Amino acid sequence: MTSQISVGILGATGVVGQNYIKLLQNHPYFKINYLAASPNSKGKTFKEAVSGRWQMDTEIPSDLENIITEDASDINQAVGKVDLVFCCVELEKSAIINLEKAYAKAGIVVVSNNSALRSDPLVPMLIPEINSHHLGVIPLQQKEFGFEKGFIVVKSNCSLQSYMTPIFALNYAGFEVSKIIVTTLQAVSGAGYPGVSSLDMIDNLIPFISGEEEKTENEPLKILGKIGPFGIENKLDLKISATCTRVPVVDGHTATVSVQFNDQRTKPSKEEIKAIWENFKALPQELNLPFAPLKPLHYLQEENRPQPRKDRNLGKGMAVSIGRLRDCNILDYKFVGLSHNTIRGAAGGGILIAELLVTKKLL
Amino acid sequence: MTSQISVGILGATGVVGQNYIKLLQNHPYFKINYLAASPNSKGKTFKEAVSGRWQMDTEIPSDLENIITEDASDINQAVGKVDLVFCCVELEKSAIINLEKAYAKAGIVVVSNNSALRSDPLVPMLIPEINSHHLGVIPLQQKEFGFEKGFIVVKSNCSLQSYMTPIFALNYAGFEVSKIIVTTLQAVSGAGYPGVSSLDMIDNLIPFISGEEEKTENEPLKILGKIGPFGIENKLDLKISATCTRVPVVDGHTATVSVQFNDQRTKPSKEEIKAIWENFKALPQELNLPFAPLKPLHYLQEENRPQPRKDRNLGKGMAVSIGRLRDCNILDYKFVGLSHNTIRGAAGGGILIAELLVTKKLL
Amino acid sequence: MTSQISVGILGATGVVGQNYIKLLQNHPYFKINYLAASPNSKGKTFKEAVSGRWQMDTEIPSDLENIITEDASDINQAVGKVDLVFCCVELEKSAIINLEKAYAKAGIVVVSNNSALRSDPLVPMLIPEINSHHLGVIPLQQKEFGFEKGFIVVKSNCSLQSYMTPIFALNYAGFEVSKIIVTTLQAVSGAGYPGVSSLDMIDNLIPFISGEEEKTENEPLKILGKIGPFGIENKLDLKISATCTRVPVVDGHTATVSVQFNDQRTKPSKEEIKAIWENFKALPQELNLPFAPLKPLHYLQEENRPQPRKDRNLGKGMAVSIGRLRDCNILDYKFVGLSHNTIRGAAGGGILIAELLVTKKLL
Amino acid sequence: MTSQISVGILGATGVVGQNYIKLLQNHPYFKINYLAASPNSKGKTFKEAVSGRWQMDTEIPSDLENIITEDASDINQAVGKVDLVFCCVELEKSAIINLEKAYAKAGIVVVSNNSALRSDPLVPMLIPEINSHHLGVIPLQQKEFGFEKGFIVVKSNCSLQSYMTPIFALNYAGFEVSKIIVTTLQAVSGAGYPGVSSLDMIDNLIPFISGEEEKTENEPLKILGKIGPFGIENKLDLKISATCTRVPVVDGHTATVSVQFNDQRTKPSKEEIKAIWENFKALPQELNLPFAPLKPLHYLQEENRPQPRKDRNLGKGMAVSIGRLRDCNILDYKFVGLSHNTIRGAAGGGILIAELLVTKKLL
Repeated sequence: MTSQISVGILGATGVVGQNYIKLLQNHPYFKINYLAASPNSKGKTFKEAVSGRWQMDTEIPSDLENIITEDASDINQAVGKVDLVFCCVELEKSAIINLEKAYAKAGIVVVSNNSALRSDPLVPMLIPEINSHHLGVIPLQQKEFGFEKGFIVVKSNCSLQSYMTPIFALNYAGFEVSKIIVTTLQAVSGAGYPGVSSLDMIDNLIPFISGEEEKTENEPLKILGKIGPFGIENKLDLKISATCTRVPVVDGHTATVSVQFNDQRTKPSKEEIKAIWENFKALPQELNLPFAPLKPLHYLQEENRPQPRKDRNLGKGMAVSIGRLRDCNILDYKFVGLSHNTIRGAAGGGILIAELLVTKKLL
Repeated sequence: MTSQISVGILGATGVVGQNYIKLLQNHPYFKINYLAASPNSKGKTFKEAVSGRWQMDTEIPSDLENIITEDASDINQAVGKVDLVFCCVELEKSAIINLEKAYAKAGIVVVSNNSALRSDPLVPMLIPEINSHHLGVIPLQQKEFGFEKGFIVVKSNCSLQSYMTPIFALNYAGFEVSKIIVTTLQAVSGAGYPGVSSLDMIDNLIPFISGEEEKTENEPLKILGKIGPFGIENKLDLKISATCTRVPVVDGHTATVSVQFNDQRTKPSKEEIKAIWENFKALPQELNLPFAPLKPLHYLQEENRPQPRKDRNLGKGMAVSIGRLRDCNILDYKFVGLSHNTIRGAAGGGILIAELLVTKKLL
Repeated sequence: MTSQISVGILGATGVVGQNYIKLLQNHPYFKINYLAASPNSKGKTFKEAVSGRWQMDTEIPSDLENIITEDASDINQAVGKVDLVFCCVELEKSAIINLEKAYAKAGIVVVSNNSALRSDPLVPMLIPEINSHHLGVIPLQQKEFGFEKGFIVVKSNCSLQSYMTPIFALNYAGFEVSKIIVTTLQAVSGAGYPGVSSLDMIDNLIPFISGEEEKTENEPLKILGKIGPFGIENKLDLKISATCTRVPVVDGHTATVSVQFNDQRTKPSKEEIKAIWENFKALPQELNLPFAPLKPLHYLQEENRPQPRKDRNLGKGMAVSIGRLRDCNILDYKFVGLSHNTIRGAAGGGILIAELLVTKKLL
Repeated sequence: MTSQISVGILGATGVVGQNYIKLLQNHPYFKINYLAASPNSKGKTFKEAVSGRWQMDTEIPSDLENIITEDASDINQAVGKVDLVFCCVELEKSAIINLEKAYAKAGIVVVSNNSALRSDPLVPMLIPEINSHHLGVIPLQQKEFGFEKGFIVVKSNCSLQSYMTPIFALNYAGFEVSKIIVTTLQAVSGAGYPGVSSLDMIDNLIPFISGEEEKTENEPLKILGKIGPFGIENKLDLKISATCTRVPVVDGHTATVSVQFNDQRTKPSKEEIKAIWENFKALPQELNLPFAPLKPLHYLQEENRPQPRKDRNLGKGMAVSIGRLRDCNILDYKFVGLSHNTIRGAAGGGILIAELLVTKKLL
């Protein structure tokens, strides 16, 4: 990598944007050259724009403090300045779609954390360890959407990360999972700032997150899908039932998962499953991407793990930790998964996608 | 009730014992006349014995402050003083069995919060709304164990309370549940004091509670069982799979529950289920027992309920609140249940059993 | 009390309003006859108006569920319906002043939880145990403000309650306190709902509450002041320095307090101070007001008390608990105080004021 | 530094010991060569010995997993293996004194986190930014205690760190502070594991920490003292009054501090104080010690800072953050300080002392 790629952040003052800023410091590929947010941040230094809302435990990088924040909808400001934007604005669905398409149309690659385009069969929803081949749909996307150089790829919902890669690892080893019943115990950082009221999170939990169960049940079908003539086609022979809850944890989504294999005759033993997880590696590891964890999956032996505060930072927050694999009386097995929702599940996951695009010469 | 029944508490200085003391104040049937704990409390006033460990948000009742605490193993101290003891000592399983049998042999009725005798087919494990008919095994228990006047009944584990009565209500209405997959999110008070470390419960949760999943999976089979020639026989055609987690909540166990009905052709609609729950009443309500909630089950309409801090006190902590009934992609339906683990799930549940014994003339 | 007095709540859908509704159930003097809130609640049943925001751990009283919520600014709706309103609307200062004066002008007594009129020398700011004689300023208030039958009294800020009555008790016993350095550790319920973000209250605290230190330093000067020709005159020979912090506690403000006595030669011993506190009683106790705690001050002997969750409910949330009285190296003594901010510090305190007005024949 | 110095950890399985292990990874001066704990860890691999108790959010370093844990009292095991030990055993005071002296007698330098020898005038209690000159007492210590090559230095209590360096910076700039009233809001990690019960830290705080106020009031007098003929003499013209509380925070002690200057005529303005803090540098910065923060003191401009979770990691957990400097009605000024109790206040602080010893050629 002889020279760095200039990138921008749309929604830079929000929590996910701040995480991008924190994580992209000293990145070997990317250099932030553009910070944009809502119109009322326009013209302010980034330090002013984010004043009173900076949530990171590190200081604002000194080279970004005085950068002038732009209005994210002034696409012309970005043209010529950046080759890629990470998009994490908070807007209505249609406004997000318009914004992201406008950037792509202007020749800029968009890596999006928003859910607006996730169900579009022309837009790859990437977990780089699982479905990097979905990048193959980009020429069709460019053609259909009228993009020349730019395109859009999206991240999946953070709630999936705690169990999707473990399940994909089993599929990939030849043991196809057909049913999943999952309860997620999700961290408050997933709701942004101010997000969840402290009156709801002291001596309490909330057994509901708006829209989250639908995403948890549907997005995996696309991620595990195949490219067909009209784009990515959902996998049809997988059923997921999800209950999503919010618990008093800052970072780290935990999932209790029960699974059933498609073929009851050939289903693996617990020891086989643990071995599959411990040895799993995929394209990001082969490509040695900077944000790829050396070991994407960690099976923890202690019976009371994984725990969010103690295990979320494995692999610098990019690994999934798994524990408590045991027999299930009703489906085949059950286990507990955990991933860091603001690193792997948000900004770190977006950066890994962007790294993949670089090595795939798509940028 | 012309005169009150004298009762004692074995394990009076522990958290469950303290809850008994708090809840039995001004009880119409019972009057505490005997407090016993471990040998090193012996001879101290109760106020001294519990010093530094009193966890209730009310003061020690003034009539009990100066009662002399006894050693729970000095059964003779209790004879003549009490007709019933609530047993919540913390000892090894065999020591608990010996202790409880010794009290019963001495003619004292034992209502136990311990798990030691729960799997014994001769010992009824009662949730009064569900299986008061299991009291029919007591003559056999007395004969086999050599008790004359005394006998032992036990409470079930607190983790069951959040979903067992809702499920029983369906069974009772003719819709038999055959499969249950449950994840519990349990409060720290269930682990006693000091119990769970604060380092495990700030910005964290623990996806494991020792022995809890086994109890959660097995105890319902006995509660829903029938009396046979050798005692209570487990229900065999019910399968339960449980994952038990500890979350940063003081009181109130939440459960996310997926269920399947035995007969797929006749299974009830969601509206039927809600109506069954809202209208459910059982023996404790008919007998108008002092600790029986008027409405044992509350179905909450708001999509983000039940929540522990806001709903655990329904029915003075004796009701179960339920919410979020919806279709499940894999089993039939899923819902969320909640009950107060130290009231319904511990001391309040024990008191309700004792009230049932009184009205059944077993005391 | 032969017949009940009809009262209303302005701001009924907020957290303080909800507390009034919870606490006024079955009140011997008062019956809620009017619930008002912001214009967008107008015309809805109270159940609809408060939907998704009900924070109490008891159900909405069934007799209020279907009451039609009014717009608090439609004063005519209240006339003839109520003799007194508890005002806890959330508006700008000038709008609150206008609203409260309009109600008083319409002949309705206003007991206000707002800070808008607290510094007005014509408006008594009452802690009934301390300064019920400030009611003497009401004729002057009525004359100056042009009220005939109505008038306005206000509650002080909740942060004071944890130490003002203990300090007044010393003053009253003849030991005048002249300097107070206090740090408050305040509960999140004081900020309303949604109030403080959970991201600020998990594994964190905030050492700042907007406007709170000014109130904590200034309001006591008026409460301890005297009535002069132009209204209540602040006490001038008392200095207070406050630091106010927000901590992850639901209810209960704790204060660490250092005090110095005016007269160093006659200052009391620690034993004298404890005796003064334990024996303190005032007008609400003499009048036997329903919400008056039998014992306004509890000195707790255990070295690690008071604690919010365990002690805030003393005297049904209306008592102040105190502990850890010890020598201070710089001022004379230091101690820890605690009071329940949403009961004594908000709705309960307002009700006690209203009860005082009844017994003083001002209503 | 051509070759690394071999060090050991006494009390390696405890939380402070684990922090040493985490922080010493890849240290430029030191290499861990010896891990010791209580007798029942003896002979186990470190991984076994710490099983179920590892609290760090990183994995056990792979080169230490299989090191055989020794009994800390087998001093001979350490001789020849290490030049320095970090001591954080949990024993009775006299046992700690004997243990530390025995190591020193065996020629090993002891850097201790224990309080046992803190009040001994022959033992320097070091905050390297403040009193590195106290190392001058070591020859006297060696003579009096009969040590040849070894000696003992100790860390101060973690509660001091949040305000002592800010106050020293003022003293050092010529503005001597004579009175301090401080309330600390301390994190639970300071109590070790399991330490504080979660039942005391959910919706609660404890206004007491055993022995902590005495340390907070007395240790600064020694740290700011001078070396006299018999060792370090306490500073006499400084008075401190402390209230120490425990709050639901994992890491990071906050202090609310009021101070008075000795000379009222020359006291600095708030702007001068902020400038002093922002520009403060001391010996560790001049020596460029690896664990020295570039900026020991950070004055934060935002009115609601410092906050533990957001600011404790400034300077990799070795800096103190300060905010909210304002006038005090009673003493001169008040402010809020914060430091990371397990890094600066424990293991990181010990490592900085050891680095100082190296550069001072005492090792």
